[in-house]
Amino acid sequence: MFIIPFRSLTPVLQKSDHIFTQILSKSSSQQNMVKKALVFLAPGAEEMEFVIAVDVLRRGGVDVTVAGIPDSNVVKCSRDVYIKPDIGVAQSSAKGPYDVVVLPGGLGGSKAMAESQEVGNILKNQECSGGLIAAICAAPTVLKAHGIAEGKELTSYPAMKAQLEEGGKYKYSECKVVVDGNLITSRGPGTAFDFALTVVDQLVGKDKAVEVAKAMLLDY
Amino acid sequence: MFIIPFRSLTPVLQKSDHIFTQILSKSSSQQNMVKKALVFLAPGAEEMEFVIAVDVLRRGGVDVTVAGIPDSNVVKCSRDVYIKPDIGVAQSSAKGPYDVVVLPGGLGGSKAMAESQEVGNILKNQECSGGLIAAICAAPTVLKAHGIAEGKELTSYPAMKAQLEEGGKYKYSECKVVVDGNLITSRGPGTAFDFALTVVDQLVGKDKAVEVAKAMLLDY
Repeated sequence: MFIIPFRSLTPVLQKSDHIFTQILSKSSSQQNMVKKALVFLAPGAEEMEFVIAVDVLRRGGVDVTVAGIPDSNVVKCSRDVYIKPDIGVAQSSAKGPYDVVVLPGGLGGSKAMAESQEVGNILKNQECSGGLIAAICAAPTVLKAHGIAEGKELTSYPAMKAQLEEGGKYKYSECKVVVDGNLITSRGPGTAFDFALTVVDQLVGKDKAVEVAKAMLLDY
Repeated sequence: MFIIPFRSLTPVLQKSDHIFTQILSKSSSQQNMVKKALVFLAPGAEEMEFVIAVDVLRRGGVDVTVAGIPDSNVVKCSRDVYIKPDIGVAQSSAKGPYDVVVLPGGLGGSKAMAESQEVGNILKNQECSGGLIAAICAAPTVLKAHGIAEGKELTSYPAMKAQLEEGGKYKYSECKVVVDGNLITSRGPGTAFDFALTVVDQLVGKDKAVEVAKAMLLDY
């Protein structure tokens, strides 16, 4: 359940020594490369879950891109905080691939992400390529809407439990953070730090997650 | 240490019954009035501390105004999240008085607030009128810069301890949240929920703080 496929650690073996050396060299360089995250920001997003994810990942040295839905204009979040995305979702693929795609919660934001064909396509590509997907609060319902991570164990905001259990596509857990293969899910604002630190742990390593937590006066 | 002066609960006694009735009536109406908060947003503000304060206060039914420094343009926060204030600081007095003025942390944001004459004036007026002042992380240094809350007990991000102790103006505490009269202070991102919930508790009541915490999957 806790094995994460690191795409950058999968060099293809070649017969030619020259080519093999090149690939090993590239692989070694990729291991040291900064990890990349895409975080969606849709109208009605829960601003604490959004900001904690972005801030904690950037503290962890992750290169975070915030993709606005439907575009790069300022987004009104669930409690009327106005946040400007880095780019619009249509431009996000050009900046990828991403090591993780993060979906913050909030009812309005989750509805917008569930209805977005572009979000669906990005999630399907991320799943096919074995990259991490991380969703919190109401956002795991977005995965169900797009047919992502079926068969996996996940959690969500408690009010979404029935919706996620209906149809038997997922195994529901009530843990604060659930990691199942390349899927990370969590429950709400009160678990948002644990959620973001788990993403840092999986992408960069436990030492970095512990270091970031300590600087924020938290334990991990 | 935990007594908060509620300005709206201080009717002035008058000899005329008529006037006295009017004042009682006004006082009763003020007791039921929505509480008002002013939250500063300056370049380099710690976006988690800012957003958690605004979001939690709004969940608690507080009418929150976000005042940008120096103006109402989009602000680049400490981890490159871009947030749009509701108004510029120069317009904030016209929307007051406020039951609480909140100062989020972040080194850059605190420096900008410490250097702002408008912030200094607002804090001095708030202190003179007995309203609440709440500061977290690096922001208690803003109080020192403007000569606010001298003689009071406070806390801050650990790295600011020496600066706040120097000169003997404050009694330093290492508690997560410190309430001393009309001053509420706290330590960093990891204590930001406790900080914001304490402000809700002091302004609206403990029942509301417990209710808001529960909906976020936290205890208070």
